[in-house]
Amino acid sequence: MTHYQKIMKKIEDNTEVVGVIGLGYVGLPLAVTFARNGVQVLGFEKSTKKADKVNKAENYIGDVSDSDLVKVVKETRKLSATTDFSRIKECDAILICVPTPLDHFKKPDMTYIASSCTDIGKYMKPGTFISLESTTYPTTTENFMKPIIEKESGLKEGDGFWLCFSPERVDPGNIDYKTDNTPKVFGAIGKEAQDIAQAVYSKAIKYLHVVSSPRAAEMVKILENTYRLINISLINELALLAGKMDIDIWEVIDAAKTKPYGFQAFYPGPGIGGHCIPLDPFYLEHIAKLYNFDLSMIHTAGAINDLMPYRMMNKIAFALNRHKKAMNGSKILFMGIAYKPNIDDARESPALLVMQEVAKKGSVVLYHDPYINEVTDEKGNYYKGEQLTDELLSSVDCVVFTTNHDCFDVKHIVEKSKLVVDTRNAVKNVQIETDKVFKL
Amino acid sequence: MTHYQKIMKKIEDNTEVVGVIGLGYVGLPLAVTFARNGVQVLGFEKSTKKADKVNKAENYIGDVSDSDLVKVVKETRKLSATTDFSRIKECDAILICVPTPLDHFKKPDMTYIASSCTDIGKYMKPGTFISLESTTYPTTTENFMKPIIEKESGLKEGDGFWLCFSPERVDPGNIDYKTDNTPKVFGAIGKEAQDIAQAVYSKAIKYLHVVSSPRAAEMVKILENTYRLINISLINELALLAGKMDIDIWEVIDAAKTKPYGFQAFYPGPGIGGHCIPLDPFYLEHIAKLYNFDLSMIHTAGAINDLMPYRMMNKIAFALNRHKKAMNGSKILFMGIAYKPNIDDARESPALLVMQEVAKKGSVVLYHDPYINEVTDEKGNYYKGEQLTDELLSSVDCVVFTTNHDCFDVKHIVEKSKLVVDTRNAVKNVQIETDKVFKL
Repeated sequence: MTHYQKIMKKIEDNTEVVGVIGLGYVGLPLAVTFARNGVQVLGFEKSTKKADKVNKAENYIGDVSDSDLVKVVKETRKLSATTDFSRIKECDAILICVPTPLDHFKKPDMTYIASSCTDIGKYMKPGTFISLESTTYPTTTENFMKPIIEKESGLKEGDGFWLCFSPERVDPGNIDYKTDNTPKVFGAIGKEAQDIAQAVYSKAIKYLHVVSSPRAAEMVKILENTYRLINISLINELALLAGKMDIDIWEVIDAAKTKPYGFQAFYPGPGIGGHCIPLDPFYLEHIAKLYNFDLSMIHTAGAINDLMPYRMMNKIAFALNRHKKAMNGSKILFMGIAYKPNIDDARESPALLVMQEVAKKGSVVLYHDPYINEVTDEKGNYYKGEQLTDELLSSVDCVVFTTNHDCFDVKHIVEKSKLVVDTRNAVKNVQIETDKVFKL
Repeated sequence: MTHYQKIMKKIEDNTEVVGVIGLGYVGLPLAVTFARNGVQVLGFEKSTKKADKVNKAENYIGDVSDSDLVKVVKETRKLSATTDFSRIKECDAILICVPTPLDHFKKPDMTYIASSCTDIGKYMKPGTFISLESTTYPTTTENFMKPIIEKESGLKEGDGFWLCFSPERVDPGNIDYKTDNTPKVFGAIGKEAQDIAQAVYSKAIKYLHVVSSPRAAEMVKILENTYRLINISLINELALLAGKMDIDIWEVIDAAKTKPYGFQAFYPGPGIGGHCIPLDPFYLEHIAKLYNFDLSMIHTAGAINDLMPYRMMNKIAFALNRHKKAMNGSKILFMGIAYKPNIDDARESPALLVMQEVAKKGSVVLYHDPYINEVTDEKGNYYKGEQLTDELLSSVDCVVFTTNHDCFDVKHIVEKSKLVVDTRNAVKNVQIETDKVFKL
């Protein structure tokens, strides 16, 4: 029996073991989804704390349901987690869900993928299927992963192991689309790898879409997020011009949305946050340099996004100026630090960047976010969230809406505040004294 | 009775006369739509030829149905056309549908709007409602039109006449959305103008969406088309990189489309054509300079679009080079010169720009387009379309797909050709010899 026949037989008999490397925002929902569908899953985590939590069925990811986790860990025992990467040898298929951040110079930080590949190469058994889910530049699977795994394992791709790229499409907080019902794209090297990918993933995912190569699949994810980056950047730029021209950009967007074809609405804000949109396009920009190719749209969009925190700081300064106040010494309360509404995730949140800039100018910076009790920004500044009280609102010099959580009682907050800067059109449905509220 | 009461009464009694200035792609469908709905319409045209055609019910616009035109001109007699602009005095409401092109330096050419305003100011009766439909920069209605009309008429806006901006959303060839069932945005100066606009337009348009000012309405149209410009430019740029990376961008787009939220597909091509998308955003760029504001996204997208014809010329040169042929002296056949599929409109068509560049390099340029028998480009070069025969296909050195008309028998064309450059993924569903076809 060939390796290929063996793994296909195991999948058919439902005796395969799927390893998931990285149990974060992507990996844990994926691991739980496979386990819920009766597949034996072994999660690998460098963090002992996270691995222990999983093994105690203590949930730490918003998109995972507590009861699902309890069920697959405690009842069906289909999911367990380990920090022992030598147990990779127990797995038939390995799905890599590790971070792909940018370093401080905005270059791809490939250390997490490299480390996973080294571990896999060291410990896997011959005939293992390997799929990368982390967003990365096209050619990563073929030109970056394959050589590491071949070197570490002494095996040959297509014979001793198979390679695939299948991008995660996790949208934190999305209540309609979760891991199992979001269509999943994959591209594998060779026909065998493609068949195995189809067999492995179809246990957990309802709709699969195959493309001809890993590099095509890598490009798919970058296209999706680049589309969002440039459109948010465009609307942020137009919003700044509209402000100067006495045009309400949100009114304009709502009207443009009445066009029944060829338009999709994006909304301005204090910048772009989250772990994908502000990062992924720069993976493409990185690899494009290898082809002497300048990605001018991404570059321009990135420049707009980089400047947004400073522009928001200026808005706050000009608002205070109307009250004859300087930033230096003013108390400023930020409402919402999550990068989008109704979630507890402050990664790459533009609110934190605006807070940094305002603090540099000597303001006392406070925040309130019902979803996030405390936060440490990437410069190491620690903030503890405030309780929202009328006393707090009336005591600060300016309130800044940075995230439009649905639970905010905007009318009440505006009433009790001296001055409001609204970067999210939070005041949309509130009758307001216009000299009290500054919009983007 | 005030002017306001008079015009509202006339509209109520269905005795109002609506004037439409400019009977082109926008004005004629609009005039016919009003007339079909029982409103008396008088069309104004500088071109005697067009006015005569309308009066003989000879249709010259693809989006107008011949039978509708015959009906409103010959039977109900609700529509007639004139070249005599002094008859503006017969109208209660005037809708301006004149061109707003760019001059050779890519600056707004406002002469058509200015000329319409002068005619209106000279001839209108007091109490006339005026609405501009032509795409233009925000503040045009308030700061450009109003002073001209006030000066020429001696009347005051809001008292002697009313002003509104309501952008046309004509999408040539769209079979689902025509003038009457496409939601229409408008913004007027003052409450009276807003009420009159609602009353006038609701006779012909099913869904109206009001915004607070003409400048907001002006911005709506620019936003819609800027969105398209930057997204097409982005995908063109990514397509060029994908080509270098051995990735099929069309496969990538089809896969990205499986994402059920947050993505809209745009497709690459030889450039951006039509009378709107390549022009409108530069109206905004023009007015932004008044506010010392650099619209970097529009600027970058414009630069990509400007370069596309040269890049396509290079693709053709490299394809010929594979056959050890130079451009100089080669015979090149362009398939499709309309700016989009299945229409007869070659305005701003990128095909014409590619043809110009290729001709400059000494190639013999031929074209076939079943919708367009002859064409003169903006430099004055005249081309007569070829009949498509197997002899023609086998006699030329290269066939270039520039428009993907549905009626093209692509498989047959590829079979009979020596060499094919495909800028539109026309070969998508054809099994092809890959060394014969160069994709974008």
